[in-house]
Amino acid sequence: MKFYDCSTAPSPRRVRMFLAEKGINVPTIQVNLREGEQFSEAFRAINPDMTVPVLELDNGVRITDAVAICLYFEEIQPEPRLMGRNAEDKAIITAWQRQMERDGFYAVMEAFRNATPGLKNRALPGPDNYEQIPALAERGRMRLQRFFTRLDQRLAQSAFVAGPNFSIADITAFISVDFARWVKITPAEEHRHLRNWYDAIALRPSTKA
Amino acid sequence: MKFYDCSTAPSPRRVRMFLAEKGINVPTIQVNLREGEQFSEAFRAINPDMTVPVLELDNGVRITDAVAICLYFEEIQPEPRLMGRNAEDKAIITAWQRQMERDGFYAVMEAFRNATPGLKNRALPGPDNYEQIPALAERGRMRLQRFFTRLDQRLAQSAFVAGPNFSIADITAFISVDFARWVKITPAEEHRHLRNWYDAIALRPSTKA
Repeated sequence: MKFYDCSTAPSPRRVRMFLAEKGINVPTIQVNLREGEQFSEAFRAINPDMTVPVLELDNGVRITDAVAICLYFEEIQPEPRLMGRNAEDKAIITAWQRQMERDGFYAVMEAFRNATPGLKNRALPGPDNYEQIPALAERGRMRLQRFFTRLDQRLAQSAFVAGPNFSIADITAFISVDFARWVKITPAEEHRHLRNWYDAIALRPSTKA
Repeated sequence: MKFYDCSTAPSPRRVRMFLAEKGINVPTIQVNLREGEQFSEAFRAINPDMTVPVLELDNGVRITDAVAICLYFEEIQPEPRLMGRNAEDKAIITAWQRQMERDGFYAVMEAFRNATPGLKNRALPGPDNYEQIPALAERGRMRLQRFFTRLDQRLAQSAFVAGPNFSIADITAFISVDFARWVKITPAEEHRHLRNWYDAIALRPSTKA
């Protein structure tokens, strides 16, 4: 098995944190996104979508999506459970994970990629070039403020994002909060529940993976 | 169990088609999105996110996301399998489902919501109002053309989106192709593999659900 990673990028970090929680080690190859290694012919042959993470199985099959890679490891090593134990749990965690991704992770991505001078024409990851849309960067910032407010409300009622147990939804939310620093947005002083949750998660060794 | 649906909307259709493939019937309540019933106080109490689909379980738990609802039914009634049989299959299908959603379904949503006169200030679903961004509508249309081209290439090599078997990835892709008609974009004559696949799927009774 081989894991194509980039140690500075938030997307593959989702998988690294997931694997660290399970205590799984996978031989890792770094892809230098800052130097554009994802656009090289060698990497395009590995993932035509030109993104990391990628997991290559021993039979040569490649899985090119962070959540799909997490599911693979959840299936081959269920404990500790990060994606739910039964139908109801799995559905609830999936719904929260997707909400954190959509309202948090993707909002940062919109804010970041549409406003960063070094990413001109790279407003979306992947093989195609798209011009930056300044109004979309602005909208991403607005969405992010609301994301923090709602996440704070949720964590006032629940120990973790998807319920009483730590799950992949916390991983996505935590990494989104860190990623938001890239656009200089952090939880407000008043987001007390969010800040307490963040500080508690930050103590987990998996956040350093 | 109760299923909150809207018979004209593409998001809950993903669940309807999934359930029809499995032969599952769930008591259904229609939410009239065209008349803004999702913004009513009654529906906000059911889903503060003001979207359909919603699945309400007998214990009162509500699942408010199309893919999470599909996963729930896959778990309680695995056959016929639509989300994979083993770790590798599940990961591959998840990756393809997410790619179809991101590059297809969400691209139509961008093109549609950012350009439709009746959706002023409703550029995103959910509780918050966001102004339309014309450049984003335009980008959605460009993405959609590329989505069709790549889907055609994929279907030149594979009977179904995620491999040799029909899966949730086909459901997402098929509904995205139908949804694209809302912005008057259809597969080109030269997208022969895509068109053949579409015509074959269209014969499945689940497409009428």
